[in-house]
Amino acid sequence: MTTPFQRARKPEHKEQRRHDILNAAATLGRRKGVRAVTLTDLAAEAGIHKSAVLRYFESREAVFLLLTADAWQDWAAALDEAVPYAAGPQKVAAALADTLADRPLFCDLLTHAQLTLERGVSEQEVRAFKITTLDAVDRVTDTLTTAMPWVSREQAIDLIAGVTAIAASLWQTANPPDTLARLYAEDPALAHTPIEFAPRLKRLAALLLAGTTTPTEGDPSQKHT
Amino acid sequence: MTTPFQRARKPEHKEQRRHDILNAAATLGRRKGVRAVTLTDLAAEAGIHKSAVLRYFESREAVFLLLTADAWQDWAAALDEAVPYAAGPQKVAAALADTLADRPLFCDLLTHAQLTLERGVSEQEVRAFKITTLDAVDRVTDTLTTAMPWVSREQAIDLIAGVTAIAASLWQTANPPDTLARLYAEDPALAHTPIEFAPRLKRLAALLLAGTTTPTEGDPSQKHT
Repeated sequence: MTTPFQRARKPEHKEQRRHDILNAAATLGRRKGVRAVTLTDLAAEAGIHKSAVLRYFESREAVFLLLTADAWQDWAAALDEAVPYAAGPQKVAAALADTLADRPLFCDLLTHAQLTLERGVSEQEVRAFKITTLDAVDRVTDTLTTAMPWVSREQAIDLIAGVTAIAASLWQTANPPDTLARLYAEDPALAHTPIEFAPRLKRLAALLLAGTTTPTEGDPSQKHT
Repeated sequence: MTTPFQRARKPEHKEQRRHDILNAAATLGRRKGVRAVTLTDLAAEAGIHKSAVLRYFESREAVFLLLTADAWQDWAAALDEAVPYAAGPQKVAAALADTLADRPLFCDLLTHAQLTLERGVSEQEVRAFKITTLDAVDRVTDTLTTAMPWVSREQAIDLIAGVTAIAASLWQTANPPDTLARLYAEDPALAHTPIEFAPRLKRLAALLLAGTTTPTEGDPSQKHT
């Protein structure tokens, strides 16, 4: 535990402070969504002064961008665990969907990384983020191409871009702002299944992965004839 | 043409002003991206005073949300034109990807509608937006299920959610902020094909649509045996 409002001077204490701030960001991000978490919230949750947060990180955005990089690595490791040896596309699709659905903070961060976080930090921070993220994409590519040898590395990277884009968008749809939530409660016909995050992600991942087994030349609708 | 800074009093003049403001938003959104367009920019481009914009629309967000609703309807019409009679999944995928790639403003708006625009307007405006958008989704669903009779309406709605999520995310990746653009220029290995918007969208749409022809029970990797 850290002592509130006391400056960390030893390297191990500094590391602990950084760790506390990242933990605070993850806790708050899960609780109220990344968009709503301010630097003041972060400081309060970590038990340090707001100015102290800025001794460890460039900005609120830098904290969440580092969390995003960690979340990419965590997802890559979890997916590698979850994909069975010689899995078919259906099992890989289920593993992709399950590991993403189990990581709501990652799904939320995916949107904000692209839209706001990458814009709120220095080039040096963006570079570090990209290096860590591309390494995670490489690891996921290894997992996918090992489980499905007919998938090229290029196609695996497309699949990763596709499934993470879908997870990110569906997460936002499933977690609407208050005005929309009220509207959906009043008029369920407008909702279009807003809370159906995991099942829809699963179905779309299954479609994408099944597509890899369909020949791309000729008309696939003819394949059963 | 409108006369700058003169108040519109007749109904047809008011309609013209609304139209001018929406046009200004579309022009600026295409030119510099939706995120960068302020209410002041909108007023200047439309040739009216900032306070006048707020006589016609609740907020900057309301202007862009209305543009988004129009863009959904426009896309639904264009897709219906672009999908040939009895098209196979490959032709439908190409039509989906082409019509989206031809509508960069729509792709940009898709992200902002979900993330900021829906949050910046009253419940009444969100309701109108949802009604128009769901109508467009219905029309796209008709087009998809007519072209591919093996696709259910539920699956068509999944496909629409999937392909628009991918288009939205890829558009943002292909249009990075300045810090990222500089980084990519310095170190192309970090870019991960940032400008490959249309080809990647086409490949992912093809995968999703091809997936609809694969049986969902059993292991699709076995289907050729």
